Amino acid sequence: MRLFSFRDGARVKLGVLRSAEGTKYAALDDIAPWAPQSMPALLAIPKALETIAAAIASAPTALLRDTAELRFAPLIPDAGKVICMGLNYADHAAEGGHARPDYPSFFLRASTSLLGHGEAMLRPRQSHQLDYEAELAVIIGQRARHLKAQDALGCVAGYSLFNDASVRDFQRKTSQWTIGKNFDATGPFGPWLVSCDELPEGAAGLRIRSRLNGQVMQDANTSDFLFDVREALVLISACMTLEPGDVIMTGTPAGVGYARKPPVFMKAGDVCEIEIEGVGLLSNPVVDDVE
Amino acid sequence: MRLFSFRDGARVKLGVLRSAEGTKYAALDDIAPWAPQSMPALLAIPKALETIAAAIASAPTALLRDTAELRFAPLIPDAGKVICMGLNYADHAAEGGHARPDYPSFFLRASTSLLGHGEAMLRPRQSHQLDYEAELAVIIGQRARHLKAQDALGCVAGYSLFNDASVRDFQRKTSQWTIGKNFDATGPFGPWLVSCDELPEGAAGLRIRSRLNGQVMQDANTSDFLFDVREALVLISACMTLEPGDVIMTGTPAGVGYARKPPVFMKAGDVCEIEIEGVGLLSNPVVDDVE
Repeated sequence: MRLFSFRDGARVKLGVLRSAEGTKYAALDDIAPWAPQSMPALLAIPKALETIAAAIASAPTALLRDTAELRFAPLIPDAGKVICMGLNYADHAAEGGHARPDYPSFFLRASTSLLGHGEAMLRPRQSHQLDYEAELAVIIGQRARHLKAQDALGCVAGYSLFNDASVRDFQRKTSQWTIGKNFDATGPFGPWLVSCDELPEGAAGLRIRSRLNGQVMQDANTSDFLFDVREALVLISACMTLEPGDVIMTGTPAGVGYARKPPVFMKAGDVCEIEIEGVGLLSNPVVDDVE
Repeated sequence: MRLFSFRDGARVKLGVLRSAEGTKYAALDDIAPWAPQSMPALLAIPKALETIAAAIASAPTALLRDTAELRFAPLIPDAGKVICMGLNYADHAAEGGHARPDYPSFFLRASTSLLGHGEAMLRPRQSHQLDYEAELAVIIGQRARHLKAQDALGCVAGYSLFNDASVRDFQRKTSQWTIGKNFDATGPFGPWLVSCDELPEGAAGLRIRSRLNGQVMQDANTSDFLFDVREALVLISACMTLEPGDVIMTGTPAGVGYARKPPVFMKAGDVCEIEIEGVGLLSNPVVDDVE
């Protein structure tokens, strides 16, 4: 099942696709009036996804809407935390001149940096070094602390796509990458959550690609993770309690713009697409920040 | 005026002191039923602090409660983002072997790392290197983007105290400090927000100290910031939109535990206090994480 956040005027509401590749969806408040209009609150309810899957399967046609009209919001605009892993593919670590790490590099992204599928990424006024990063997103469905490997994946509600777009000169102004990862509207997240039952265990073995204006820039496989989803959950939950609606971004493979010769950065008019086999396509145009 | 979050059973509610050093407070839902029970939502309401100040001044005695009964929660448990500045005092940068920076080091803290005044800080199972850091917290009251220096301080609702306690070995496992700054229940935040009218402009010139078991460990002044509150607001808002309830932690002065010879780390039974002139005292015991 595919669950998402969409814009209804100034509000963000939850919706669900009728089928995996379907053209119809329902607003959650039409088919599941009990459901809170917040992904973290919804995921905290036991069996929420199963109940919604049954509700959309049996929803009367009159409640279905056309996906062509959808304006997606960031998948979880009110996530408690968005934990990002850096250097989680050996080839990407190597292209940046980094040694193969024995512990992941973690940083956090704030909600103001996120945007939805189809929304415009902002190229900052202060920098022309806006770079794409294709990533698999892991959505937490259950509170988890001190997870053990054998049952770590049980806390995952599903998976999505993320473009961890980075303002490279700000990322490198100091040793801490955080500011370059948190510019307004630079992190496309969505379009939807794909529930675990539709994907291989731990979302392993999925082809992951980015394209800039149709040209393939990154092409890798989630089997190439240095720390796979299970290991990431164990390492993170040893430090931080994971809560429903929290998100883990699993890092990007080789092929990013700054490491190319000559470097490639995104500019107004570009369209950047992230695609992961079985998860979907996340596409966003780029505009200049002129506010 | 002094506004805070407190625990009422399993809920977190907002409260306000009757006077600056008083022993009486009121629950906000008793004196301002219009007020949302969330600091970000409250601060987003124009003139909310002024209206509450008038309400507490005229509140009938029957609505006042004794502060001795208060169980504080983290000042803003649902902050949209908690932005931390590293190396913002020259003496602390020097004690860690860092050059004087020309741009601040930023990182983020997640809400799961925060706790209230009086609550127990957790010393992690995996590390014995839990270290204190006395900091001034800046609470944002108005949405702000691309601030200019001359009016930057207008978006500030008030100030508070923070103990940016850090798990040093995890902070240094990679180049990214974030994981060592985000262990569960390691960041005491509070007890209250002190509104701007009670403090010097930009909270400048305030003595800031930490004490561990009564012994002074850090003793400095907010006039020693490398980047003062005004500059921090300009730099951050050039990258990220600041929203009501967002928080900026302004970094710590020299005297932290890891830089001492021999190093001093916190252990179960310790009590760590942060004090800032005119803002208050933030005191927390330390316990081992044995869950």
